[in-house]
Amino acid sequence: MAASALEALIDALHLLPGVGQKSAQRMAFHLLQHDRVGAQTLADALDTALHDVRHCERCHTFTEAPVCSTCLDPERDPKLLCVVETPADQAAMERTGSYKGLYFVLMGRLSPLDGIGVSDIGLQALMDRTADGVVDEVIVATNFTAEGEATSHVIAEALKSREVRVTRLARGVPIGSELEHVDLGTIAHALVARR
Amino acid sequence: MAASALEALIDALHLLPGVGQKSAQRMAFHLLQHDRVGAQTLADALDTALHDVRHCERCHTFTEAPVCSTCLDPERDPKLLCVVETPADQAAMERTGSYKGLYFVLMGRLSPLDGIGVSDIGLQALMDRTADGVVDEVIVATNFTAEGEATSHVIAEALKSREVRVTRLARGVPIGSELEHVDLGTIAHALVARR
Repeated sequence: MAASALEALIDALHLLPGVGQKSAQRMAFHLLQHDRVGAQTLADALDTALHDVRHCERCHTFTEAPVCSTCLDPERDPKLLCVVETPADQAAMERTGSYKGLYFVLMGRLSPLDGIGVSDIGLQALMDRTADGVVDEVIVATNFTAEGEATSHVIAEALKSREVRVTRLARGVPIGSELEHVDLGTIAHALVARR
Repeated sequence: MAASALEALIDALHLLPGVGQKSAQRMAFHLLQHDRVGAQTLADALDTALHDVRHCERCHTFTEAPVCSTCLDPERDPKLLCVVETPADQAAMERTGSYKGLYFVLMGRLSPLDGIGVSDIGLQALMDRTADGVVDEVIVATNFTAEGEATSHVIAEALKSREVRVTRLARGVPIGSELEHVDLGTIAHALVARR
């Protein structure tokens, strides 16, 4: 029943992560029937982003300039380098307002099950970045998931021979939580790391 | 932290139905980092669909020609007209393989709460369509939801003065279901409509 341009649109929407065949169909109908302006906006935004967005030469995050504004900010402490998995994680760090150093964004995490190995994340670029003679502490802020922990471990190993201190965000009981509802592993870790 | 082209892309993806801010961000990162070909495919598919897809002059569904292939099919019985809410509903009817008449696609349903009134669905076009002197039965196959039933009611009222029979898909117990798990309203209706 569908015209081929419509089917092509449904297939293309189906490429988006987390969008199944039925959702893709609903999105295509919605765009064509109720939001043609939005569809055009999306098409243009995709074209512009594909053309303009690249990786920062220093920290690897998305930017439209050769070096991103964070890396160029003279107010930031160049001796501190925080390693995160994604720009979203970087944004979460920024929202705390309590970090004034620079970043390195891996743009991924180790995930052997998905075929993402050491060469697929920016590990070599991180090595090059930490060799600038200025960085003296690398704060590993990968996620506290199995993949994030594995990534953290590989980074720590790789930086062992360097003249930099490698630290990890503290693990422990989250602020505002009741012990009754915190998982056992977290409590056990918090007990060992008590201070 | 995000470049403006990236923010524009996230905002545009956020326009899609069922996609929140976080999902939009994840989609944008995924497209730019892991699937640039997919992003280009989607941009092109949107442009093509916006340019080529229009409504069939006879049945109102999406098509790339002035009149869709279903309406032009000489094998179909032009005396039967099945009214559905969306092309997806039409596809569901087609999959049964047991309907050989034509269709009319409302491209919506009455939904006063969402501000969708009689003039926003193709009711006038349906009136014009049924005035061709050939159609002698209109099968109302709107959904069996509150909105779909209201839409069905309005269609039946509007067609009352016409020389056409208006029927509705039968309500009853779905094939393959156990009475224990069928809702009471359906069982009560099936009892009244027993044959």
